[in-house]
Amino acid sequence: MDTKVIKAGVIGATGYTGAELVRILSAHPNVRLAGLTTQSYGGIPFWEVYPHLYRHVDMICRELDLEELAEKCDVIFTALPHGHSMPVAAEVVRRGKRLVDLGADFRFNDAATYERWYGVDHSEPGLNGRAVYGLPEIRREEIRGAEIVANPGCYPTSAILGIAPLLKNGLVDNRSIVIDSKSGVSGAGRGLSLTTHYCEVNESIKAYNVGKHRHTPEIEQELSALAGESLVVSFTPHLTPMSRGILSTIYAGLKESLGRDEVAALYREFYSASRFVRILPPGMLPSTKSVCGSNHCDIGLVVDDRTGRVVVLAAIDNLIKGASGQAVQNMNVMFGLPEETGLDRPGFYP
Amino acid sequence: MDTKVIKAGVIGATGYTGAELVRILSAHPNVRLAGLTTQSYGGIPFWEVYPHLYRHVDMICRELDLEELAEKCDVIFTALPHGHSMPVAAEVVRRGKRLVDLGADFRFNDAATYERWYGVDHSEPGLNGRAVYGLPEIRREEIRGAEIVANPGCYPTSAILGIAPLLKNGLVDNRSIVIDSKSGVSGAGRGLSLTTHYCEVNESIKAYNVGKHRHTPEIEQELSALAGESLVVSFTPHLTPMSRGILSTIYAGLKESLGRDEVAALYREFYSASRFVRILPPGMLPSTKSVCGSNHCDIGLVVDDRTGRVVVLAAIDNLIKGASGQAVQNMNVMFGLPEETGLDRPGFYP
Amino acid sequence: MDTKVIKAGVIGATGYTGAELVRILSAHPNVRLAGLTTQSYGGIPFWEVYPHLYRHVDMICRELDLEELAEKCDVIFTALPHGHSMPVAAEVVRRGKRLVDLGADFRFNDAATYERWYGVDHSEPGLNGRAVYGLPEIRREEIRGAEIVANPGCYPTSAILGIAPLLKNGLVDNRSIVIDSKSGVSGAGRGLSLTTHYCEVNESIKAYNVGKHRHTPEIEQELSALAGESLVVSFTPHLTPMSRGILSTIYAGLKESLGRDEVAALYREFYSASRFVRILPPGMLPSTKSVCGSNHCDIGLVVDDRTGRVVVLAAIDNLIKGASGQAVQNMNVMFGLPEETGLDRPGFYP
Amino acid sequence: MDTKVIKAGVIGATGYTGAELVRILSAHPNVRLAGLTTQSYGGIPFWEVYPHLYRHVDMICRELDLEELAEKCDVIFTALPHGHSMPVAAEVVRRGKRLVDLGADFRFNDAATYERWYGVDHSEPGLNGRAVYGLPEIRREEIRGAEIVANPGCYPTSAILGIAPLLKNGLVDNRSIVIDSKSGVSGAGRGLSLTTHYCEVNESIKAYNVGKHRHTPEIEQELSALAGESLVVSFTPHLTPMSRGILSTIYAGLKESLGRDEVAALYREFYSASRFVRILPPGMLPSTKSVCGSNHCDIGLVVDDRTGRVVVLAAIDNLIKGASGQAVQNMNVMFGLPEETGLDRPGFYP
Repeated sequence: MDTKVIKAGVIGATGYTGAELVRILSAHPNVRLAGLTTQSYGGIPFWEVYPHLYRHVDMICRELDLEELAEKCDVIFTALPHGHSMPVAAEVVRRGKRLVDLGADFRFNDAATYERWYGVDHSEPGLNGRAVYGLPEIRREEIRGAEIVANPGCYPTSAILGIAPLLKNGLVDNRSIVIDSKSGVSGAGRGLSLTTHYCEVNESIKAYNVGKHRHTPEIEQELSALAGESLVVSFTPHLTPMSRGILSTIYAGLKESLGRDEVAALYREFYSASRFVRILPPGMLPSTKSVCGSNHCDIGLVVDDRTGRVVVLAAIDNLIKGASGQAVQNMNVMFGLPEETGLDRPGFYP
Repeated sequence: MDTKVIKAGVIGATGYTGAELVRILSAHPNVRLAGLTTQSYGGIPFWEVYPHLYRHVDMICRELDLEELAEKCDVIFTALPHGHSMPVAAEVVRRGKRLVDLGADFRFNDAATYERWYGVDHSEPGLNGRAVYGLPEIRREEIRGAEIVANPGCYPTSAILGIAPLLKNGLVDNRSIVIDSKSGVSGAGRGLSLTTHYCEVNESIKAYNVGKHRHTPEIEQELSALAGESLVVSFTPHLTPMSRGILSTIYAGLKESLGRDEVAALYREFYSASRFVRILPPGMLPSTKSVCGSNHCDIGLVVDDRTGRVVVLAAIDNLIKGASGQAVQNMNVMFGLPEETGLDRPGFYP
Repeated sequence: MDTKVIKAGVIGATGYTGAELVRILSAHPNVRLAGLTTQSYGGIPFWEVYPHLYRHVDMICRELDLEELAEKCDVIFTALPHGHSMPVAAEVVRRGKRLVDLGADFRFNDAATYERWYGVDHSEPGLNGRAVYGLPEIRREEIRGAEIVANPGCYPTSAILGIAPLLKNGLVDNRSIVIDSKSGVSGAGRGLSLTTHYCEVNESIKAYNVGKHRHTPEIEQELSALAGESLVVSFTPHLTPMSRGILSTIYAGLKESLGRDEVAALYREFYSASRFVRILPPGMLPSTKSVCGSNHCDIGLVVDDRTGRVVVLAAIDNLIKGASGQAVQNMNVMFGLPEETGLDRPGFYP
Repeated sequence: MDTKVIKAGVIGATGYTGAELVRILSAHPNVRLAGLTTQSYGGIPFWEVYPHLYRHVDMICRELDLEELAEKCDVIFTALPHGHSMPVAAEVVRRGKRLVDLGADFRFNDAATYERWYGVDHSEPGLNGRAVYGLPEIRREEIRGAEIVANPGCYPTSAILGIAPLLKNGLVDNRSIVIDSKSGVSGAGRGLSLTTHYCEVNESIKAYNVGKHRHTPEIEQELSALAGESLVVSFTPHLTPMSRGILSTIYAGLKESLGRDEVAALYREFYSASRFVRILPPGMLPSTKSVCGSNHCDIGLVVDDRTGRVVVLAAIDNLIKGASGQAVQNMNVMFGLPEETGLDRPGFYP
């Protein structure tokens, strides 16, 4: 297995998640990068767009020729705006290759949900049913055989991992869930907007898309599946003055009194096969800095007897566990590699 | 009234809230600074400790001689760690002068609550009953005649202002309140700790004191008074990588369906006499940057029909409306000045 | 003089320097804002573009009608990209009104220098001769009577103020001057570019336009005038991860050995009438934070006997002393007001 | 060679450079961590002090028992305040083991220089002569056989690498060198001080120790050796609001007119065997972000014909190439491993 070589292509390589994919894949022992495509930088060396990879990646950015790319790859990663991965998927699957889509196009069991929240038609409803929601800690077995893996959104990754064990065990009031998430700015991508202009973000925190962010139905779909009944949640994303990281603070009412140790034991059990999830010991709470640069999801647990609520803190690096690291983790699962291959380095501090 | 001169002293002038008091008071048209005391910088010009005030404040920091200071002042501001204002208050009141305490010593109606959460005895229970909780938008009339004003904590200011109109009008389920607050680092003061070390804070967000922060009982006391019944809340403070600002995201279940416009109308009515509270129009949400440097509290309102919750966003500058600006606002009320005197400048952007 | 009312208009009000002008002018005791124009936000309340001014400025942004605006104003401020102020100036001067231009169009004695560095023709060479370079600490008398004041660039303000006394007194080798400047990001304006995208700037420092920044000839023109001979300088601007502030570190070889106290005495003498320049005492060095929010220029002085060089550190708030504060200071001089009117508040810290 | 195992100990493991050593060594294919010592955290798991290494490093911090540690290690890294490595070195060398000292104790050929600038006696002058200044790009051959390697300071690494080719080739006026350096805050370590308090650093840039920083003589020693004559430089360090990174902007007068391409060719030749130094192509200038997380030194070159100066921009990650990465690079050289072993991963962006 160590000598297996997977030929990988990245479509949309010059956004932030694309560049993280390139960085991780370029150091992955079982991967050979076979093609990097981009809309804006065709013909330019990748390292001119991302100088941190000078002397590490010597490929040239290419405009997409899908047939050619699919032909020479075993797996394609798409890091594109929503709506753009559906035609790619059709071609990739037709050729018997596999797809990890970092966008939203294949995340919903019900294409109508996708269409309602994203405002576009789903052009490949047939393929949608063959896609698996790619959160390996929850759907590892399904991912193994999947043709299409729909890599989760960054917020949903932290939110679902944060509360899954409680829902799976039926311990909380399913109507009581509040998810208050704080994200670094890289989640908004490299595209220009006033929202991501340095002086507008720096030294400021604000909420946005309150009650209507597109990651809401994705969270609800997966939490409903875990809970065994349809539920809705309050989800509020916030833009925080930092480049990387998401911290989700999750509140839920406990159905019955539970000690912190009991809750922690359930979490450890639930994630016993999931090396990237670290349940912190009592008294330790996660910070985004402690997961920055790694594929970890750190989880801290507090039971508040006064209010009868459990408060879960879940931290990830939005570009790694929240996007490109998770995509590679999915690829590892799909190709039978140890899940942590190429993702085993700790993060940076400070 | 324009020619009234109030002689003011600041005890604990060299912390961040002390320095903000000095800055605001030094430009206040009706105030003459009569004394600045400090534990660590006795004999040193204030501007050597805070060079931004070079040529603006030429006073020398003094070690505290309480009798002398109280004698020459009309009002004393204490910006001290909890437990240190009680003896000061006794002396100030004995001399018929007035006190604005920026600490926690006089914030609780019930001294036992203070003693339980702060772990110290209340040495002046008699005076405690003569103190008023100094949130002018809620207790303006009581503040006017108060001998002692207990200036609110930074988090409680944003939380209470954020949800007061809903509780006063009995519109929400009192057991459903979740307050998720994000603060800049200056709230932790100028004292050294690993928690406020640059490299530990920068590029990181984390929660702390979840379920046990000392501002919790303060919030609950005031919200219970507004609601007319005893209630508890989930309150989670977060340390955010920025110097100034607090954003509180407040969730509460609506008892009955209400439109966003109806809620906003209630807020505008409730704060009609309160110039510093700005209810933002539909579609606008507050950011801490937009209140930075000002005494404003900006409030954004979202009604989420899917979940039946209202989500309130309340932003303040923690050192101004959350501390020193509010203290001066209280002084203005106590001395019969227009409430915005010395506080009428807008903030800075960006 | 206190009752004088100056009617002021701002052309280009919705950029960062425009917004700072509006903030300062709106609180200026002798100014009435008569018109705010903008290319992009016509018809929109100014506070919707800049919510920090909600309830402070209730004017509506207008598209420019130059004749109408000039008619109703005593002074016009232009905060426009280079090349756009020349036609405005012609109309303003024709009507006998006065102009403070925050751009580069009128900064050069020699229009050819402007044309060479900015790559555009100067359409009003006749007016150019009637414009004064608006650094009040250097050209106060000329500014008083000027029809057009060319407000200096942000970097030149710090550089020229930093070294002027040495050149005026002939103490340094005129060919030895190195100016290494570090700027916050707001100097690049509110326009979108990858250079000012949050994630590209945050946690990074870099130089740009080395040896060819357009502020170079402006610095050289003024330093040559002070030195009495034509000189060139090395000027390197750096983009620093902060919103506001410029620090210029200036190196010059001393012609003869001089003590730090002698140098400081010369500086104090040179700036004796200039309240906004603060010469720091020995052992204190300026930081951008200590001038943030104020119109000060803080100067620190070090004489290095080992190398025979003097090192000058000069710090300003780029949007205030480096742009809009200085523009108002110029207006004050032009209209015979005390120079610090409307600019006398200290900055914020932290 | 691939199977070689080096047993390594880190003395002073819980500072920032110590923690970076632990992170890098823990993933180094030829290293087994044999002991981590610390003054403050004895008995505590290393990951409790640095949670990012939870599940990556399971060692317990120990108080130093030098004999025991030296016995079981092949190489010792000391990450201690100056003055503390001399006794360690004596013991390590006595046992025939090897030392990489990240402090200043063995950086100076002339112990008197050390004593003058650091204000302490050198207790091991005999060993001092057996130590090699550990900048592999300059002294690779000497390092191979060294018993003690004195790992360079962070500023000197960027400054010396930045200008070495020019001095070696005799192209610049040796008395004209100005080094203006900007550092992130982690260079000041994890110890508490007002200087590194979040709110004091954030949104501010300032110079410190102008003309007297202790890295000055270290830079001068190495540059003098390269130039073949004793020289002095102006060196000004600045504290920049970011965690990691140093950018040195270096100015030197060219003896004769040279094109940018000629200069670049000399640099490429000089560093042809040095994989970690990247000479950027024309038009590209380094940023600290592009080297963050890597062992690279990126160099940009500008020749300014107007002033006759060359301006060199050199960027490193101060904790990696400026400290712990370079220490591991030195170890690789000392033990005959490929120089990039364990250091070959690219950095992070953004």
